[in-house]
Amino acid sequence: MSRFLDACRRRPVDCTPIWLMRQAGRSLPEYRKLRERWSLVDIVAQPDLCAEVTLQPVRRLGVDAAVMFADIMLPLRGMGVEFELVESVGPVISRPIRTAADVAALSEPSGEEAAPQVIEAVRRVVAESPVPVICFCGAPFTLASYLIEGKPSRDFAEAKQFMFCEPEAFDSLLARLARVMSRYLAAQVAAGAAALQVFDSWVGALSVEDYDERVAPHTRAIFQATAGLGVSRVHFGTGTAGLLESIAGTGPDVVSLDWRVPLDVGWQRVGFDRGVQGNLDPAVLLGPRDLVRSRAREVLRRAGGRAGHVFNLGHGVLPDTPVGNLEVLIDTVHEWVPAVVA
Amino acid sequence: MSRFLDACRRRPVDCTPIWLMRQAGRSLPEYRKLRERWSLVDIVAQPDLCAEVTLQPVRRLGVDAAVMFADIMLPLRGMGVEFELVESVGPVISRPIRTAADVAALSEPSGEEAAPQVIEAVRRVVAESPVPVICFCGAPFTLASYLIEGKPSRDFAEAKQFMFCEPEAFDSLLARLARVMSRYLAAQVAAGAAALQVFDSWVGALSVEDYDERVAPHTRAIFQATAGLGVSRVHFGTGTAGLLESIAGTGPDVVSLDWRVPLDVGWQRVGFDRGVQGNLDPAVLLGPRDLVRSRAREVLRRAGGRAGHVFNLGHGVLPDTPVGNLEVLIDTVHEWVPAVVA
Repeated sequence: MSRFLDACRRRPVDCTPIWLMRQAGRSLPEYRKLRERWSLVDIVAQPDLCAEVTLQPVRRLGVDAAVMFADIMLPLRGMGVEFELVESVGPVISRPIRTAADVAALSEPSGEEAAPQVIEAVRRVVAESPVPVICFCGAPFTLASYLIEGKPSRDFAEAKQFMFCEPEAFDSLLARLARVMSRYLAAQVAAGAAALQVFDSWVGALSVEDYDERVAPHTRAIFQATAGLGVSRVHFGTGTAGLLESIAGTGPDVVSLDWRVPLDVGWQRVGFDRGVQGNLDPAVLLGPRDLVRSRAREVLRRAGGRAGHVFNLGHGVLPDTPVGNLEVLIDTVHEWVPAVVA
Repeated sequence: MSRFLDACRRRPVDCTPIWLMRQAGRSLPEYRKLRERWSLVDIVAQPDLCAEVTLQPVRRLGVDAAVMFADIMLPLRGMGVEFELVESVGPVISRPIRTAADVAALSEPSGEEAAPQVIEAVRRVVAESPVPVICFCGAPFTLASYLIEGKPSRDFAEAKQFMFCEPEAFDSLLARLARVMSRYLAAQVAAGAAALQVFDSWVGALSVEDYDERVAPHTRAIFQATAGLGVSRVHFGTGTAGLLESIAGTGPDVVSLDWRVPLDVGWQRVGFDRGVQGNLDPAVLLGPRDLVRSRAREVLRRAGGRAGHVFNLGHGVLPDTPVGNLEVLIDTVHEWVPAVVA
């Protein structure tokens, strides 16, 4: 068995498992070398390349899980959405969703049809990976916000305006996204995924009231649809300090916390009967090594040796992170021995 | 006396006072007309124009305070910083701060020298305004993050890297900013400001630990320096759900809350012995009028008729906000009669 999967199920582990969002990426020299020849789009389109990039951090860093190198936007192509992944900007949609008719025009493909090249890449990674493979999808709100805004946003004004002015169309959009993403996750599990993460990266823009009424039911639908797949499901969000109880209520096995809430405080709020993931500020990895060690130990101290903690950052590895700092972090986590509580 | 100033001091009021961040701006037809001829930079450079724009929402909307039309970057020019205010981007600094020497090169002007045109505009607004005039400055962290990043940022990676790798220079930068901003606020009070707001707009990017150790002492220095001026001081931040107790500890009279925390929950956390401001999501004003009314009443219900609530948005008025929705909001707040608690 794996310490990552054990921790997701709150079973005892030999040491705290760690993986990092964007562990495959610009911090690794072998990734940068590959990027001299291939674009982001090339990599995700070619299952062999995608598998190679996914496995690079597993080989070099000794992380406890492989996370697919992919983008939450990819399965939207199977729904008929055209977009570009623009370097250092993010996804840019050709025709943003503006009306109920735009929502109705979205197709609902099977999980494999949504992004066949990702499913094929999952099979190849699973065949080669010495550690469990994590697959993921975007959560309905975060995907909808890209679809409506058309590009990354700071205030989500367009997405919220659509939510307030076209409540039925907004609800229908999130319901469609939840159905397709549930199938997409199931297809990834059929291809060998050992755990799933649902990325609601921008949900922290919402009030509790809007989250509970307009968004949570659709996120909950995904966790209900995937409950019988036999794999652990993680909820990811940032800026969620106001939403933790509501997020726990959507039914994930593990809640990812960001650095804006101390880990023990956040864990108590989502409930100790649930796992937590996190929660180092990725910017700490731009600092000196001593800081990386001391801040990592602070997170571990707050976890307090309880079963059910997966170490991670509160968001993805920043592009300029020195690979040496990633190594220091992973060693620090693996070497940690919790104090015996009297 | 004024209901706005009374509420800041937690005295009884005839009805809940309201003002809105960016109440002077693109929502008002008279502002858009003026902008056909003058740029943002023109307006803030000319005290007469600046006073006119500041007073437009007071005349049209009947808000309970006038907030100076200005930018938190303006007094940095007096410190020797060159920047542009780029439309729909934000401030862009010519030479971002990268070293301790860059910090040491910043000058420390008097409050009036920091931005003489703002001080002159304050005098003119105060002479004409039927309601109290709110002046403001940027908080040390938010100003420093612009100075270090060089432009608006999503993750504040450069600012945090500087904080972690150059802790003395970072501390010295925030201390300088706190000294100059304290003088700048004092100069605005001398010119007639009746209340002050300290904008730490991006402080929600920080962990509690970093805020408490590296940032809070400098924000506290501003509230200490302005404590004897005889005016109420408001702390503003967004995404602060993890920081409210720490922010209250820096000593403001009023804490501005955003919509990510229900008003009553946030008020309890900053303490009922302090005022609160907020906390409607500005995006609600892009929705239908009935929603504006019901959400405004929900905020008022949570305030519960306690003395010390100033109604506001959790952030600035969004540019596409219909002026009719601003009018509905202000009427709803002024007409509210709190339920008598048995």
